[in-house]
Amino acid sequence: MAPELEQAIAAAQAAVQQQGDTVRSLKASLKDGNAQQSQVEEAIQKLQQLKLELSEHQKAYQAATGKASSQNKEAFRAGLTNTLERRLFYIPSFKIYGSVAGFYDYGPPGCAIKQNLTQAWRQHFVLEENMLEVECPAVTPEAVLKASGHVERFTDFMVTDVKTGDCYRADHLLEAAIEAALEDTKAPLSPEARKEAEDMLAGVGEMRAEALGAALTKFGVVAPDTKNPISTPFPFNLMFKTSIGPRGDLVGYLRPETAQGIFVNFRDLLYFNGGKLPFAAAQIGNAYRNEISPRAGLLRVREFTQAEIEHFVNPDDKRHPKFDKVAALQPLLYSRAMQMGDDKRAQALSLGDAVSQGIIANQTLAYFIGRTWLFFLRVGVDPARMRFRQHLQHEMAHYAEDCWDAEVQTSYGWVECAGLADRSAYDLRAHTTASKTELTAYEKFAEPREVDVLRVIPNKKEMGTAFKKDAKAVTEALEALPEEEAECLRKSLEADGKGSVTSADGTKFTVTSAMLEIKRERKKLAGRNFTPSVIEPSFGIGRIIYCVFEHSYYTREGDETRAVFKFTPTVAPTKATVFPLVQKEALNEQAGKISAALTAAGLSNIVDTTGNTIGKRYARTDEIGVPYAVTVDFQTLEGEGVTLRERDTMTQVRVPVDEIAQVIRKLVDSAISWQEVAAKYPAQKAAEQEEQQ
Amino acid sequence: MAPELEQAIAAAQAAVQQQGDTVRSLKASLKDGNAQQSQVEEAIQKLQQLKLELSEHQKAYQAATGKASSQNKEAFRAGLTNTLERRLFYIPSFKIYGSVAGFYDYGPPGCAIKQNLTQAWRQHFVLEENMLEVECPAVTPEAVLKASGHVERFTDFMVTDVKTGDCYRADHLLEAAIEAALEDTKAPLSPEARKEAEDMLAGVGEMRAEALGAALTKFGVVAPDTKNPISTPFPFNLMFKTSIGPRGDLVGYLRPETAQGIFVNFRDLLYFNGGKLPFAAAQIGNAYRNEISPRAGLLRVREFTQAEIEHFVNPDDKRHPKFDKVAALQPLLYSRAMQMGDDKRAQALSLGDAVSQGIIANQTLAYFIGRTWLFFLRVGVDPARMRFRQHLQHEMAHYAEDCWDAEVQTSYGWVECAGLADRSAYDLRAHTTASKTELTAYEKFAEPREVDVLRVIPNKKEMGTAFKKDAKAVTEALEALPEEEAECLRKSLEADGKGSVTSADGTKFTVTSAMLEIKRERKKLAGRNFTPSVIEPSFGIGRIIYCVFEHSYYTREGDETRAVFKFTPTVAPTKATVFPLVQKEALNEQAGKISAALTAAGLSNIVDTTGNTIGKRYARTDEIGVPYAVTVDFQTLEGEGVTLRERDTMTQVRVPVDEIAQVIRKLVDSAISWQEVAAKYPAQKAAEQEEQQ
Repeated sequence: MAPELEQAIAAAQAAVQQQGDTVRSLKASLKDGNAQQSQVEEAIQKLQQLKLELSEHQKAYQAATGKASSQNKEAFRAGLTNTLERRLFYIPSFKIYGSVAGFYDYGPPGCAIKQNLTQAWRQHFVLEENMLEVECPAVTPEAVLKASGHVERFTDFMVTDVKTGDCYRADHLLEAAIEAALEDTKAPLSPEARKEAEDMLAGVGEMRAEALGAALTKFGVVAPDTKNPISTPFPFNLMFKTSIGPRGDLVGYLRPETAQGIFVNFRDLLYFNGGKLPFAAAQIGNAYRNEISPRAGLLRVREFTQAEIEHFVNPDDKRHPKFDKVAALQPLLYSRAMQMGDDKRAQALSLGDAVSQGIIANQTLAYFIGRTWLFFLRVGVDPARMRFRQHLQHEMAHYAEDCWDAEVQTSYGWVECAGLADRSAYDLRAHTTASKTELTAYEKFAEPREVDVLRVIPNKKEMGTAFKKDAKAVTEALEALPEEEAECLRKSLEADGKGSVTSADGTKFTVTSAMLEIKRERKKLAGRNFTPSVIEPSFGIGRIIYCVFEHSYYTREGDETRAVFKFTPTVAPTKATVFPLVQKEALNEQAGKISAALTAAGLSNIVDTTGNTIGKRYARTDEIGVPYAVTVDFQTLEGEGVTLRERDTMTQVRVPVDEIAQVIRKLVDSAISWQEVAAKYPAQKAAEQEEQQ
Repeated sequence: MAPELEQAIAAAQAAVQQQGDTVRSLKASLKDGNAQQSQVEEAIQKLQQLKLELSEHQKAYQAATGKASSQNKEAFRAGLTNTLERRLFYIPSFKIYGSVAGFYDYGPPGCAIKQNLTQAWRQHFVLEENMLEVECPAVTPEAVLKASGHVERFTDFMVTDVKTGDCYRADHLLEAAIEAALEDTKAPLSPEARKEAEDMLAGVGEMRAEALGAALTKFGVVAPDTKNPISTPFPFNLMFKTSIGPRGDLVGYLRPETAQGIFVNFRDLLYFNGGKLPFAAAQIGNAYRNEISPRAGLLRVREFTQAEIEHFVNPDDKRHPKFDKVAALQPLLYSRAMQMGDDKRAQALSLGDAVSQGIIANQTLAYFIGRTWLFFLRVGVDPARMRFRQHLQHEMAHYAEDCWDAEVQTSYGWVECAGLADRSAYDLRAHTTASKTELTAYEKFAEPREVDVLRVIPNKKEMGTAFKKDAKAVTEALEALPEEEAECLRKSLEADGKGSVTSADGTKFTVTSAMLEIKRERKKLAGRNFTPSVIEPSFGIGRIIYCVFEHSYYTREGDETRAVFKFTPTVAPTKATVFPLVQKEALNEQAGKISAALTAAGLSNIVDTTGNTIGKRYARTDEIGVPYAVTVDFQTLEGEGVTLRERDTMTQVRVPVDEIAQVIRKLVDSAISWQEVAAKYPAQKAAEQEEQQ
């Protein structure tokens, strides 16, 4: 029954939209004298009737299915995307050349939001947490990305249409096929087959090439555009490849993440920090992934901005000195146990409890979960539609200790916007091995520690007899044996009377018990060198922006549907608009002066001298999320201040001209609330219909 | 004689440096009780003697040559670079993997400066000039860069070592060879040969492959590293090439400049601006050039940040409404005439005069020269070491109307940091042709204009007879003839009685006078479509940063040489340091509170609890250019404020604790000057030796 109801909703929605257009155009004609007031009123009446019908259909759907219609989601997203592209928040790149999938331009309001959001991130993390910010190139030589594992493993599985060569992501095709089979009402699956299909669907993300190939065959998957057969899945590396320098023999890639730039600088950064741990480094910059099939607008693109933090910490002490500042926060947590449980719901839990109950692995990871939550709230994400989801054991890399994704609910479902991972010492160890540069820190013990060490004492005479000219090399190799290998040698000598040792140049020598003595000694150590663990909070800026768009967008119902973005003042691309009430030189001049004062206070602003009705101008400015509007009228010229209107409450106050820039500055800085402003300055009653004109 | 004197200076400089180290380490030992006061005093006496000797050598050099020694320049740059790399302003990228030429990382202070400088740029240009900021991807499909001409022409000439394959820039090799020949005292050139060599040197930049090859042969140039023969020069494209998408058939490049992203969005941006001209769009972002031989540190790198403006304007009206705001400014201008004249000196000239005398082509270009000058001053470039140099006629592209480079004098000579060009309609026309999308604006005339137009009236009957089935195509082609071609046809018919016309599908037809009539008619036009001109100010952020480093760096002479960066508060990476006078818990706590207040006010700050002498801590903080230092002492705990010290004057005042964050905020925002602060708060006399401790 649901499909019929959805169709009814769609039809009703289209009718409302069309009638809305009619009302708008009639109003315009009314102004030009080409329509009569009665015509307009009649059209409005019809519009209201249509809206009523739409709402009935929606209620019927919800009653029948227990959920909001996907038609609603589609309509919501269509309205949002229409507003975003029309007002140039973002647009497909290279449009006049036909565009290329996965690339977007930020137009003026989108660009301003991105700036505001990254600046807020910098203030929230870099400044407030005293992080060391770095900026490294995107072009990266192969050696770095070989060490990090990206050259070998940064792949998705691809299949091609065997006739056209078109490319598809194997997992996407398989998911679509399984979902189709599960929803197929004409040839329903047996209960066993259904269970099997559901289990497979949950595991598609972790399948390797062979399993994917078998499953694609099982479901009879063909190329979706041509119905041609497809190839077996093979790995496709997602890095953009290039060549550095004129010789053409130095392979480079565009970095797939910003993190590696921090790891390779670890030594210098540790030195910069006076040799002390813990410390965090951060980087905001672009990363690149040559996605096989980019989709979902800003959510899966080929060039995107990341903000990454690498917090280096002693693996034996992952407490955080400021943990008490976040311990009482209660974000929605969706732990491994909750995901495996029956009701599969995230729960609000204090971070203090989550750590003490062992749900989050350590204080530092939990601290960053708290700070991340506060950041998302600060930029306008709805806390009720945001959760931290813990990775299941099989989702995590073998070295990872614990991982949580910050997920935001949107019309596309839950979207991963940040990942917080305790990656242990993996990255620094990998670069130590590949670069032959020790990336370690030194810890001075509070008290010198007595430890048992194995000491290997070669018998020089025996060595000389046995190894002649190699004696020196063997002796040195024995004396330099690391603890573990010395222990291994000791056991071997005990068992067989002989063992082996490898000299610095790689030659292997057999030694016997007669040639050396291995003694256990107590030694006092003042400190130790160790490879720090790294806790990595990593943010996808474009994804956060898209989620902020979804959570900020709403429509106000009046005669016509009006789009509004309720951006926080921090994020809003334009902080204020200035309207001369009517087109008069004196008013324009005064508006220009106020605009200049706002600019001098660092507040982006627009002067709108179109002379449209104030209501129309409010609507235009609501649509790009401007929080404050200043109207200059004739009383302003007589020294009686200006009208200041707040976007969401649509309330107005009267503020003296010489205070207006500072009032808005303070509002934007959250140094004063709108309630306080409303209490301090006289209210200005808006004509009831002003907002609707 | 000069080389010997330079060597003497170098030796003396090294001795001073070494003795400085000795003094420093003796002082440290003194503290630990391992040295005596007398030893320190003796070492200082020796240091002062060495400095005196150095100064004598420098004076002798200057007397002999009439200029400061290049040794001075080298020493200056060595000191500067040492400080920059040691304090992690910037470092070669991928160091642990041996680095790759032309790539640099910005460490924490460098990164902060870059942020501050780009934010200042955004405030100065985007906000204050109401520009439309956009952000486009760096990965760009080939079509865009074919249209812009980069695929074909963005090249440098390269030669290779025929045996090793090593690559060199042909012009660099030639310049070095000519300079060596000019300076060769053993086989001096004849006056004619010298004149010829000098002329050639001035023209190396504009030489094409053949001329370069001939000149390299003439000077017998070989590969500098091996002395092997070199190849003939050939063009090498400087763009990094890659492939977009999984198929591998879509060629992409990393953009060599950010400008193209603006041009391809022109239509949307014009719409966003309500269809009105002039308007400016701006973009800050990374650009990439695969330089053949990167050198000179931050000045010639392979990945760099640009800030570009494209100001679109009616070609018939390049006045600027705010020109009077810059008309009185007097930057140093180095016009074409001055460059060709005898004394080859730039002159301070008001921009108003420069425009009215026709030195700068138009008001808009001059307006941006003025704004650029103000920006450079705002971020700390010395106006006496900065000039605007006009391109000579042969330096400009054929379509350019006028070009000026903002050049800054450094130890490397004059460095181009920004280019300001009137590029006429070239870019938009190129993209119109390639994308088949009209990139034009509409101008409504104030009054409808009567114009003479040629109207072509085909004689349908004659056409039918002559062209049969093609008659319709020929008729349409004739009716659609643009003005200029119609005029051409008219002349042809008049002279020969026949002419030709090309139909839409490209076929050429011969027409005779009998087949058509061409009439001159008067027509009323309400407006016109036209391709706007573009005025492009383009900034290299990394180069500006390097110049700011050079112009901000100086050393204070005391017992030891102390490096200082006199960064403007806007640019300074850290705005304030907070020092507890000695290591006491109560002082540290108070310092922490002040630090938190500074952070909340958006002021980056460092708390230094090392317990070093205040003088040492001042020195460390001067070295990264922190403008303000706050010292917390025991009187602070008794409510008697803190000491605030200004970096350059080294003067101190006493400020109440609850005012300190706001005082520094205002100083950083230039809302108050240090003089005003010094007048308002009681002075705190520094112990004479405090700065030197």
